[in-house]
Amino acid sequence: MNRPIGVIDSGVGGLTVAKEMMRQLPKETIYYVGDTARCPYGPRLPGEVRKFTWEMTRFLERYDMKMLVIACNTATAAVLEEIRREMPVPVVGVIQPGARAAIKQTKNRHIAVLGTVGTIKSGAYERAIKATDSTAEIYPLACPDFVPLVESGEYKSERANDIVAATLKPLKETPADTVILGCTHYPLLEPMIAEFMGPDVAVISSGDETARGVSAILEFNEMLAEDEKPEHRFFTTGDTKTFYSIASDWLGDTSIQIKTIQLA
Amino acid sequence: MNRPIGVIDSGVGGLTVAKEMMRQLPKETIYYVGDTARCPYGPRLPGEVRKFTWEMTRFLERYDMKMLVIACNTATAAVLEEIRREMPVPVVGVIQPGARAAIKQTKNRHIAVLGTVGTIKSGAYERAIKATDSTAEIYPLACPDFVPLVESGEYKSERANDIVAATLKPLKETPADTVILGCTHYPLLEPMIAEFMGPDVAVISSGDETARGVSAILEFNEMLAEDEKPEHRFFTTGDTKTFYSIASDWLGDTSIQIKTIQLA
Repeated sequence: MNRPIGVIDSGVGGLTVAKEMMRQLPKETIYYVGDTARCPYGPRLPGEVRKFTWEMTRFLERYDMKMLVIACNTATAAVLEEIRREMPVPVVGVIQPGARAAIKQTKNRHIAVLGTVGTIKSGAYERAIKATDSTAEIYPLACPDFVPLVESGEYKSERANDIVAATLKPLKETPADTVILGCTHYPLLEPMIAEFMGPDVAVISSGDETARGVSAILEFNEMLAEDEKPEHRFFTTGDTKTFYSIASDWLGDTSIQIKTIQLA
Repeated sequence: MNRPIGVIDSGVGGLTVAKEMMRQLPKETIYYVGDTARCPYGPRLPGEVRKFTWEMTRFLERYDMKMLVIACNTATAAVLEEIRREMPVPVVGVIQPGARAAIKQTKNRHIAVLGTVGTIKSGAYERAIKATDSTAEIYPLACPDFVPLVESGEYKSERANDIVAATLKPLKETPADTVILGCTHYPLLEPMIAEFMGPDVAVISSGDETARGVSAILEFNEMLAEDEKPEHRFFTTGDTKTFYSIASDWLGDTSIQIKTIQLA
């Protein structure tokens, strides 16, 4: 089934999920929407996040997508269940996969969760982890400075390093042996986060596990594509230049085409 | 949804999948059937494997299972699609997950597949891998001596080591950087297989990835259990003594109860 898979995010963060999907499912076509103009979603009220996420979903509906991946933790926490209920295609979020990967990884069942204010406030990771394993201890930590660092393209800077160290300091006091990057922007900061946490702490990004879940659900529903040369498309509500610079760097592909769209 | 998940296999091999499910999904109840009396399935004709697999499925139907895992590669190759079509609950096999994990793992896209004669003859792994990534090169190898070694409990013996080395010798001539254990019995021989292949070759067992797929599908369908103390049950068509000795060793649980049943 060669229809595209829709991937939506508040900005460039969902590209970390899209990249894993391209690697694990090289025949699948991805249509990506990043709502860069209204990023970050993290500090917004759930009602607003809900509205914006529906706008991206409606935009992609015209392309007859076969599946939707909400590649934004804040949006997943706010509106996954509603969109899943109302859309006629499978809808996948990033929180359950991240929780799943952490449960598989941890040895001492102490798990830290980094996320936006919205994601941390929602308690969605704690619920997802406890639903599978009630004995796990969770250490949630909001990191409101991380998304702006990534969206501005500063994720390799000295300043980023300082902010990461200052933000994560409280985690050093916990026994957590596993840290979930509970925001799809954070994998771009992963080298710094892993370095700061040290070699005894595993850093989990949900992109990897989300791509596995997408693959499992496509296969289970007999919806895998057979396209040898899928043509991905990228849409942003913001500036194509910054989006291009981050996307081409992260995906390792300078040939990608990006189109500016209006949602509101 | 606290109904049991059925797990079926030709013998004890499927326990490698059940173990991963217990670890990743500690609230799920597993009802396991091992058709030890008629093991191995590998050398049998597909029609016979089909009949036996249906018999195990019908046996578990009376327990109102919410999902079925065909934890046997030979049975998955022979009859997954038919059972999936006819059963009212989700049915998961082990071949697609193994293929998925290998694609994710390999760096040079050269993948060896170990399996029973039935699985290798079916070409099911090659199809599953190529369906996702046409550029992969596959090196299939039938290992007919492995299942009897495991079922007889000899999987830690010197003799096992010799047989593993003799069987896998041809793989040393290939550029494969990843080996799929395409039979759920083989993970019990994994230390020997990994030792023989050396540190540069990744050894993939489908149990891990199958458990992830089961988790993804349960979550996606809102079918996760909430049982804090699930009571697993084990059924075998053969001798409970050998089954107990292998199962209690592999699962690290001496309290398991095993019941002999008749299927034919």
